[in-house]
Amino acid sequence: MPAPTSAITVPNQMRCWVLGDPGQLTLTEKPVLQPGPAEVLVRIDAIAICATDLEVIAHGAPATIGGGLPFNKNFTPGHEYMGTVARLGPGVDEFAVGDRVTVEIHAGCGRCPRCRQGMYTSCWNYGKPEKGHRANGFTTDGGFGQYAINHVNTLVRVPEGMSDAEATLVVTAGTAMYGLDSMGGLVAGESVAVLGPGPIGLLGVGVAKALGAQPVILTGTRDARLEKGLRLGADHVINVQREQPAEAVRKLTQGRGVDFVLECSGAPSALNDALWMVNRGGRICLAALFPEPVHADLGRIVVDNITVFGIRGEGRSATHRAAALMGQKRFDATIIHTHTFPLDQLPTALRYARDRVEDAIKVVVKIH
Amino acid sequence: MPAPTSAITVPNQMRCWVLGDPGQLTLTEKPVLQPGPAEVLVRIDAIAICATDLEVIAHGAPATIGGGLPFNKNFTPGHEYMGTVARLGPGVDEFAVGDRVTVEIHAGCGRCPRCRQGMYTSCWNYGKPEKGHRANGFTTDGGFGQYAINHVNTLVRVPEGMSDAEATLVVTAGTAMYGLDSMGGLVAGESVAVLGPGPIGLLGVGVAKALGAQPVILTGTRDARLEKGLRLGADHVINVQREQPAEAVRKLTQGRGVDFVLECSGAPSALNDALWMVNRGGRICLAALFPEPVHADLGRIVVDNITVFGIRGEGRSATHRAAALMGQKRFDATIIHTHTFPLDQLPTALRYARDRVEDAIKVVVKIH
Amino acid sequence: MPAPTSAITVPNQMRCWVLGDPGQLTLTEKPVLQPGPAEVLVRIDAIAICATDLEVIAHGAPATIGGGLPFNKNFTPGHEYMGTVARLGPGVDEFAVGDRVTVEIHAGCGRCPRCRQGMYTSCWNYGKPEKGHRANGFTTDGGFGQYAINHVNTLVRVPEGMSDAEATLVVTAGTAMYGLDSMGGLVAGESVAVLGPGPIGLLGVGVAKALGAQPVILTGTRDARLEKGLRLGADHVINVQREQPAEAVRKLTQGRGVDFVLECSGAPSALNDALWMVNRGGRICLAALFPEPVHADLGRIVVDNITVFGIRGEGRSATHRAAALMGQKRFDATIIHTHTFPLDQLPTALRYARDRVEDAIKVVVKIH
Amino acid sequence: MPAPTSAITVPNQMRCWVLGDPGQLTLTEKPVLQPGPAEVLVRIDAIAICATDLEVIAHGAPATIGGGLPFNKNFTPGHEYMGTVARLGPGVDEFAVGDRVTVEIHAGCGRCPRCRQGMYTSCWNYGKPEKGHRANGFTTDGGFGQYAINHVNTLVRVPEGMSDAEATLVVTAGTAMYGLDSMGGLVAGESVAVLGPGPIGLLGVGVAKALGAQPVILTGTRDARLEKGLRLGADHVINVQREQPAEAVRKLTQGRGVDFVLECSGAPSALNDALWMVNRGGRICLAALFPEPVHADLGRIVVDNITVFGIRGEGRSATHRAAALMGQKRFDATIIHTHTFPLDQLPTALRYARDRVEDAIKVVVKIH
Repeated sequence: MPAPTSAITVPNQMRCWVLGDPGQLTLTEKPVLQPGPAEVLVRIDAIAICATDLEVIAHGAPATIGGGLPFNKNFTPGHEYMGTVARLGPGVDEFAVGDRVTVEIHAGCGRCPRCRQGMYTSCWNYGKPEKGHRANGFTTDGGFGQYAINHVNTLVRVPEGMSDAEATLVVTAGTAMYGLDSMGGLVAGESVAVLGPGPIGLLGVGVAKALGAQPVILTGTRDARLEKGLRLGADHVINVQREQPAEAVRKLTQGRGVDFVLECSGAPSALNDALWMVNRGGRICLAALFPEPVHADLGRIVVDNITVFGIRGEGRSATHRAAALMGQKRFDATIIHTHTFPLDQLPTALRYARDRVEDAIKVVVKIH
Repeated sequence: MPAPTSAITVPNQMRCWVLGDPGQLTLTEKPVLQPGPAEVLVRIDAIAICATDLEVIAHGAPATIGGGLPFNKNFTPGHEYMGTVARLGPGVDEFAVGDRVTVEIHAGCGRCPRCRQGMYTSCWNYGKPEKGHRANGFTTDGGFGQYAINHVNTLVRVPEGMSDAEATLVVTAGTAMYGLDSMGGLVAGESVAVLGPGPIGLLGVGVAKALGAQPVILTGTRDARLEKGLRLGADHVINVQREQPAEAVRKLTQGRGVDFVLECSGAPSALNDALWMVNRGGRICLAALFPEPVHADLGRIVVDNITVFGIRGEGRSATHRAAALMGQKRFDATIIHTHTFPLDQLPTALRYARDRVEDAIKVVVKIH
Repeated sequence: MPAPTSAITVPNQMRCWVLGDPGQLTLTEKPVLQPGPAEVLVRIDAIAICATDLEVIAHGAPATIGGGLPFNKNFTPGHEYMGTVARLGPGVDEFAVGDRVTVEIHAGCGRCPRCRQGMYTSCWNYGKPEKGHRANGFTTDGGFGQYAINHVNTLVRVPEGMSDAEATLVVTAGTAMYGLDSMGGLVAGESVAVLGPGPIGLLGVGVAKALGAQPVILTGTRDARLEKGLRLGADHVINVQREQPAEAVRKLTQGRGVDFVLECSGAPSALNDALWMVNRGGRICLAALFPEPVHADLGRIVVDNITVFGIRGEGRSATHRAAALMGQKRFDATIIHTHTFPLDQLPTALRYARDRVEDAIKVVVKIH
Repeated sequence: MPAPTSAITVPNQMRCWVLGDPGQLTLTEKPVLQPGPAEVLVRIDAIAICATDLEVIAHGAPATIGGGLPFNKNFTPGHEYMGTVARLGPGVDEFAVGDRVTVEIHAGCGRCPRCRQGMYTSCWNYGKPEKGHRANGFTTDGGFGQYAINHVNTLVRVPEGMSDAEATLVVTAGTAMYGLDSMGGLVAGESVAVLGPGPIGLLGVGVAKALGAQPVILTGTRDARLEKGLRLGADHVINVQREQPAEAVRKLTQGRGVDFVLECSGAPSALNDALWMVNRGGRICLAALFPEPVHADLGRIVVDNITVFGIRGEGRSATHRAAALMGQKRFDATIIHTHTFPLDQLPTALRYARDRVEDAIKVVVKIH
């Protein structure tokens, strides 16, 4: 965590990884770009690896998003980064050179009906940078390199005293927070089940608890992960290899079920589990990708007035709210940070994340 | 449509149908009950038959709702009725004897968290009349008889000049309206697809159009039904036996898809059709029961930030709003009323509805 | 209404009016500008005069909005215009040259927290064009001239068959619609009072009625104006010189008061009138500027859980919804269009509007 | 805090205070009533004194609420109480005898349009117990006695380990929470100003901070009170006798103003202060009664798209959420509890509260 400086020397060229054929990453050099209006150049200090990065590297950006796939396009993936403002675009005074910032992923185009509504993660010009849309690491160059261009809308000030590694986790907490916000956000005293103790699920436990949810129940298959959930504030954990999750949740809630389910596992049975553990009139947020079609008891959605909605990432400025909670030390996100590597060891870092080597959860790459 | 009278002679006994074993209906007599506080006795003048009635008679009330199944419990089904206020419970001054009223189905218990939130169709005491919940025709005695007890909350004044038969359709329009309301309600100039030209779907077209939606696209398998949709205001109709519905909808919307889908068909492919015709950030309301688990591309919910929610009937006082639009002649609901029978011919009426004899849509039973 | 053409010849210089000292307008020439990214050049075909134009010309833009006042800055006022797309900025394919368009006023900056929320009329960079904000006719050049630059977000397609003059009224209807939308929008069967039969109030009657509100009550001082309200669909009108408005409204609603009040008069007593005619839990939208501090019974806001909010114009894309309703002929906005003048007679047009010469309501200036 | 017991001996008569002429309280006896359906009998263990109690005793219930004034009607005031469930009405299984409970004030009638919407504090049958409405201590007998009848909707379980005195403060925190909830509730990282360090204001600071608001700024006239605000989590305090509050707030927020203002002072200048410290598009909640008409710059509401709404107490089940936060020890509500008296010293207790003897904030009367 280098001290902020009011002048940062920016080289003309930077080192970064680019994606060739599926699965093929190469460390190379690219010119450092000049930020345009409403943009800044960020010197990337650290970046975390997300399961979606593994997807993008292996299979391209998720299918229905717009724009060309990034293979063989000199594309740099990586989206969970933080760093230091190194240069300001024309007219930018929202930030100063030297400010420590972390990012949310989506800069909407600002000109489609969804962006005009404030739903910038549902931008109809997704994947069209020529329309102003950016999703760094998905459709525009991301953070597995030394510098990146960010729209000011995607920047969040790093709270004082927060380490670089912790700051890379803000966007993950922001995604969990957006899920809870979209479910209404008034969760104090309400019951929440979180399915899947991956990074979003674990920080989802932390956020739900910080907002006063009660009880917060976490399900998963690995006891070590569930144990981390307890440390992040879960009131109960359920190992789904030993208990049927919907039954266990109903037992913990006097037969009633929970008000909210935050589904972060992507397991084929997850929607059905959620449908049978949520109570009448309850809400389910799907925050993990489902690679395959799912067989589900949709009748229950109708009979019991249930709402199911999906989120492909953060939104509604939830990342700012998550940063505030983390800055106020409401939960210790660093519990999920397990490993750190330098930029040139990105392939190793990715392997740790993908194969969960040494039970890796969040693997962070330190760049500056 | 007898003229309202300030005094209505109420007999001690009434004729009504009761449900024995599955599928078995018998015309019998029951005592006419006294309304309690906040209740009135309604003399039933007419009742429409709904697909859910056929379900209840053949298989019992939908599985996950609370309370005992109605078989062999002297239970009277039927829920889409209208009539005349015949007696007032203690303290009732919201209505007067002689007032013409139509009904919504659900009187929440008024004492569970969902009712306290105003979500009375998601009542946690569903099926528990001892807690105050009533869903006449589902869990408490309904309208295939001469009289019924209704909570004042479930009554809607019949607009002046509306026939008895048309008034039985208000709750159907109210269900469609609740679907649109729950999707935000601000549909003027927004695109809406309605799947399935059954009664809810057809009146859904009428309501969406009355609120200014544009275009309104209706899909179905039978041209005669789709033609009725055009008369109710649909801008386009798609016969899914000749066109792939999602493709056709996208073609009609410049490739974009629609903002809202109101699914009223219950077809196994319906959710997938909806998912592939709704645009990014769009919303889908499931208003038809799915008897079987469904195989669906749920990944699209996540990737494209889609909201799916189910409604088991009306809610949020939408029935009042639907009655207002119908009273203002914004659409002609009587287009879906095809047949009328007297009370003692209920079995024939049910057969017409079930087997769509003579292309029956709404079959009405006239009682007084 | 010239037929759209795919090529429009654009001169280098245009005629337009500019504001010198307060109240001083001069017809002059300016260069026609090139549209930037996400912008188009609109050939202005017609423009309506709004009370706010008179304010801007006499006293400058309303005080608390940001940015410098337009006096002596070569500023062209006028904000209720429509026209034909004459040139496209780089990357614009949302519109084609020759498209007939009408406008909403506010292009948010797209980079402040409010714009990120979709609240673009509450932009924190109001009055800072260097940040991307535009409010043509308020803080950036408007429509009392032959051409204007518009952000694509501020353009609404003119529905087929709508005259130029009617199209200038869309933004007025959009403002009324935003008021109703912000009050929840679900007004079918709900009671609405509209205070003040100026242009926004009269079209507010039309919009409320189009959405099914019932009753819609209009108050004002001039019978001729109230009569126009009846033609636009008001169920009742109240001349406040003959009746106390709050009392009259309560009498018309069985003592209950109305659910919603749309205040469009700016009269000193208007808030108190609204507070005493709205029912418990009801909502009041202030859509007219209050030039002076107001003495009001605010205790009633607290005791009766009332919401009061102000709107300084359209928002939430309500203008699109208003255009749809007008295109569907739900109400006849042209009832409020009383006079037409050519561009060089703008001072006369303004005088007609200000002094209500010949009971002028909407005065339109026809330019092409 | 006596241990819960499964059988509580209930006498036939109880001691309680009743209101004669304005200001006249007499300690007397009344029969202990039997709870009806959906009701329980609560043995009152402790009750706090609220400024509204002083109002009710001196001037009657606030003017526009329905029903007869309580003077000389054998009426028992007091509404911020907690106790032990002593008897269950027929069909009640939501609670058991011996459960410790605290209360919210309003049981809506459950049969008016507002209650049907979930807006039970805006009940249109306010003050009509014959319609089912209860507001204990306002329109029905309250808690300055040994027992009270409560609808189950108004009961909140006391979290384990919470003292009787702290439990009396839950409804105060619930009122503050309802204010924040109604402003959207998503306040983490957003700026909040609280005006007036009375009980609601001070707990408003605690709740806002618990939900992650930042900064939270408290204004007031007495340093001792402001100091308590700091202990409850305020980031900044402003003594309005030394600083102009709107200016000070703007200075603390880089000139921007705050997103939310919770007005708890009832001072004549409060609305203007709030209007000039809230930012464009911001929201103001009025949570204190204004005894007199107020002179205010309402133009700012319009020009800057501001929302102002009033709350007359708790709502939307916010009391449950407040209880959860307090049970989770997110803030120490007992900071505002300053004095305790026994039931027969109620007049002294009231005097301490009214005259702020020894800087009294919350005065609690211990009954059992």
